[in-house]
Amino acid sequence: DDESVLIASTLVEDAKEGRNLTFILTGKCVRSYILYNNKWLRWLLYLSIGLILALAIFEPPAVTDMELPYWLTYVDMICFIIWRNVATSGRPIRWSRCLRPLFIINFPDGKQIRRAFRNIRRTVPDILNVLILFLLSVLLFALLALKLFYRRDMVYPDGSPYFADYFDSIWDLYVLVTTANNPDVMMPAYNKNNWFAVFFIVYLVICLYIFMSIVLAAIYNNYRRNLKNEIKSAVFMKRQQLVKAFDLLKVVRHDVPVITHARWRQLTSVLLPTKSHVYADLMMKILDDDNTNVLSKKNFMNMADLMNVHLSEVKDRITLQEMLFPNFYNHRYSKKFKFVVRHRFFRYMFDLMIAVNALFIALDIDVADWFFLSVFLFEILCNLYVAGIKEYFTRFWFTFDFLVIGSALVASIVEKILGRSDEELRTLDVLLVLRVMRLVKIFGSVKRFKVILQTLLNIGTSIATYGGVIFVFFYTFAIIGMEVFGGLIHYYGYDPEAESGSETAFCGNPKLKDSFFYKDHYCGNNFNHIFKAMVLMFELMVVNHKAARLYFFIFHMCTVVIVLNIFTAFILEAFILEY
Amino acid sequence: DDESVLIASTLVEDAKEGRNLTFILTGKCVRSYILYNNKWLRWLLYLSIGLILALAIFEPPAVTDMELPYWLTYVDMICFIIWRNVATSGRPIRWSRCLRPLFIINFPDGKQIRRAFRNIRRTVPDILNVLILFLLSVLLFALLALKLFYRRDMVYPDGSPYFADYFDSIWDLYVLVTTANNPDVMMPAYNKNNWFAVFFIVYLVICLYIFMSIVLAAIYNNYRRNLKNEIKSAVFMKRQQLVKAFDLLKVVRHDVPVITHARWRQLTSVLLPTKSHVYADLMMKILDDDNTNVLSKKNFMNMADLMNVHLSEVKDRITLQEMLFPNFYNHRYSKKFKFVVRHRFFRYMFDLMIAVNALFIALDIDVADWFFLSVFLFEILCNLYVAGIKEYFTRFWFTFDFLVIGSALVASIVEKILGRSDEELRTLDVLLVLRVMRLVKIFGSVKRFKVILQTLLNIGTSIATYGGVIFVFFYTFAIIGMEVFGGLIHYYGYDPEAESGSETAFCGNPKLKDSFFYKDHYCGNNFNHIFKAMVLMFELMVVNHKAARLYFFIFHMCTVVIVLNIFTAFILEAFILEY
Ligand code: NA
Repeated sequence: DDESVLIASTLVEDAKEGRNLTFILTGKCVRSYILYNNKWLRWLLYLSIGLILALAIFEPPAVTDMELPYWLTYVDMICFIIWRNVATSGRPIRWSRCLRPLFIINFPDGKQIRRAFRNIRRTVPDILNVLILFLLSVLLFALLALKLFYRRDMVYPDGSPYFADYFDSIWDLYVLVTTANNPDVMMPAYNKNNWFAVFFIVYLVICLYIFMSIVLAAIYNNYRRNLKNEIKSAVFMKRQQLVKAFDLLKVVRHDVPVITHARWRQLTSVLLPTKSHVYADLMMKILDDDNTNVLSKKNFMNMADLMNVHLSEVKDRITLQEMLFPNFYNHRYSKKFKFVVRHRFFRYMFDLMIAVNALFIALDIDVADWFFLSVFLFEILCNLYVAGIKEYFTRFWFTFDFLVIGSALVASIVEKILGRSDEELRTLDVLLVLRVMRLVKIFGSVKRFKVILQTLLNIGTSIATYGGVIFVFFYTFAIIGMEVFGGLIHYYGYDPEAESGSETAFCGNPKLKDSFFYKDHYCGNNFNHIFKAMVLMFELMVVNHKAARLYFFIFHMCTVVIVLNIFTAFILEAFILEY
Repeated sequence: DDESVLIASTLVEDAKEGRNLTFILTGKCVRSYILYNNKWLRWLLYLSIGLILALAIFEPPAVTDMELPYWLTYVDMICFIIWRNVATSGRPIRWSRCLRPLFIINFPDGKQIRRAFRNIRRTVPDILNVLILFLLSVLLFALLALKLFYRRDMVYPDGSPYFADYFDSIWDLYVLVTTANNPDVMMPAYNKNNWFAVFFIVYLVICLYIFMSIVLAAIYNNYRRNLKNEIKSAVFMKRQQLVKAFDLLKVVRHDVPVITHARWRQLTSVLLPTKSHVYADLMMKILDDDNTNVLSKKNFMNMADLMNVHLSEVKDRITLQEMLFPNFYNHRYSKKFKFVVRHRFFRYMFDLMIAVNALFIALDIDVADWFFLSVFLFEILCNLYVAGIKEYFTRFWFTFDFLVIGSALVASIVEKILGRSDEELRTLDVLLVLRVMRLVKIFGSVKRFKVILQTLLNIGTSIATYGGVIFVFFYTFAIIGMEVFGGLIHYYGYDPEAESGSETAFCGNPKLKDSFFYKDHYCGNNFNHIFKAMVLMFELMVVNHKAARLYFFIFHMCTVVIVLNIFTAFILEAFILEY
């Protein structure tokens, strides 16, 4: 009987958390399942995934000075080691590396990311028509551009040919849709004859503004429909779990299956071990809205939602200082002080201090920083005293304030000890960022901005989901890019004296001699290690390389055209609901 | 009594056309109003507005060789002539010129554009909070960037200072939101320390992806609400006009106000003078859906919608060739021929011909062009014969075909006569465009694409409205730009030999000597006449000019952030309704 309570409480927990793993409803299985959901084991899983993904930092091409012996990082791939040692002349590539982000998707907590990928998979067939029509338009315009421009002996300023063949033509026009080569791609034709601008304007209006809007429309429409379905199936699943839990706990009274008060006590003692009996009884009172003193099936169905509501017990609301020094805390002066701190003029005063601080930062006056730091520290202590620790850290702006000022205090002390001699100015940088972050607090004081920021905070976890999706794409593409293009370009600095002959000239690639890639100092953008590769993929196109073009095209289609538009659709829906 | 019929028919006409000008309901006034709505007078009005707007071509700074004596184009501004002649040393600027696009907005037919502007005016207060928060974020990030980068002695590749003061910092980051200086603005910091990339990525995620999506959400939401209101008020107005018309025509029968058959005949003879009595009686039959042989007020309210439905009379449906040679057209062989032409294999065959034509164009084989031209001409003649002229030109793809092939025929003949010696190859260009346009027809054969293209055609007039709105903004900004920045930069070609000393070096502006503006051959982008100014405004920022920055900022906010987002909102709504 204890077992059925355990199973029921696990089912309720699953309904509350929105987990949807099925397990056999026996005592043995549920105990394994509980172990599987254990917090520490979960964190161990996250750590392992993090480690596997971080391997890219240490594997060649590695971050400078971070490379580990290959057999140390390749522990997962015995056959790779054998291959590498037997056939040393070959260049084995482990294509499986780029599949590593699948670990993020394929574990239970990656549910949100998996849902986003499901959304993408369902959206693609619907927008395929639009995408094909768009690509056909690009092909047609490219044909037209080729015919219009190739007879006229035009060249780019760096001497490279202008719309020389059909593939170049397609490429240049496709890149124009990303606006990356606007207006450079237009200038040679425009300088020849101003009327050629009409061609480029018509192209941009049709292929960028109209087609990309249609793609967004298709994605947005799909997103809304999918969202409705996802919510429907999530609600259905939650009901199923609660029905199962109810069936395990029910007792038949007057031909009606119900949960008695005793059973309820058993369930809550497993489900909410930290809460008191009073709390459990209160929850039952709330659920039992027809006052029958037992919970019917209908009553019990609100269980999961109720658990997500934060009910604070009176003992939680008593602050620590009130418990320790009740006489002092409830004294007349203390009460007056609390009144002052809670008054809006108190907040206005510190907002004014932030504004003054902003002015000091803008004018580069550092001397007053200790003063400001202590003023803001004083504010934190006042608020902590009045609100109590628990209440304080449930408020976003208080917590934000605490973290920013606290970190600034730590960084300031570190800086004081180390002195300003540190050439890289690293602590100073952190301090600066924190100082400026302080100013963000003032946004929280304006009500109109608060609504926007609150919406952003509410959808924060979902934004993180899309961050995860984009990370998966970036990581995969970065690994492929490193394997294919790594080492083609190096960053050696830009010394105009040593430009000819030496091996370090022109980013180590003589092909780049007259290119804008070199002249614009883009050599830092390369695929020589994972961070470089992840930071900027867009620069690829400048290296005139067919494989690079295909790579860029697929990357742009996946990440920009589809994922970024789904992200936009998500923000659209979230803010339209809010307004 | 004739007068009330005339007034009523004008009111019905207004309801049909969606005009909402009010006029006094007397015979004299309605005759003036009819004159005002006269087709030829309207075209005269359009012509005048076109002429006034075209003045910008002929006024200094004029298109090369197009400048007219100032007193000829300034006929509207006597005081300017006096000022110019009296105070020749001053440089009078006629700021009123940039108000000329108001003519487009403020005449009755500019209703759609006016509605779009009303939409913009109503949207701005709603998105103001988001825009202010966005600008504050930019200011904050700019402060942070200034603090992070100014101590490090970095410079851009062309030697210009990097985040040197607060205004530069704001400017560079604002331009980054337009992606125009991505990744150039990042490279110096990135080359110094790769971690600085984090700053730029955080900035782009917050200010570009999130804030711009929120702006789009606010605009889209507003757009939908406004659209609903506009439609509601348009329907209300139409009802009011029809009620007035009904009151003028009504006769009381059995205490119920109705329109009799005689009155209906009177009305239709004024309203639809080209249609027969049979047609008018049919319309009355359709409206009189309760078969009372008179029109009640409720019946009459459907009048305007019915007039927008195209009812073709049987005599319209008889083709011209059937009328002229009835025996021949209805002969057995002719019928067989018609069957063949209407068969889908007939269409497939010509689609195949287009594909073959595409291949020939891609491979640059011109010899077969006369062959293809005659094949497609044959197709047009077949379809014309089968469908008849009237029916033929109501079908979009037939008309498109006719225009493209017809123009190609004319252009080919012109080319044949002139020969290929023409250096500018102008006829050939037109011919090429037409040849490639032919390929577009194949899109119309695929059903999936047809839906998308049909939607685009349906919203074509509305797209034109937004074209009008953008034209108004561009024209206004172009005029201001010409007055302020005209003549600062010239295009003299790029002769590396003559680069120093001479007046034509560096686009006629020594400030540009080492700039990328000159090296990237952007000198064609200038404000020296209206077309140049309208084609590209974005290049301004390169000229390091405070006024230019303010100008660019306002232009970008108005045109890109607001108008382009409203355009996207419009396409979103149109395509979501369609799917
Ligand atoms: Na760009």
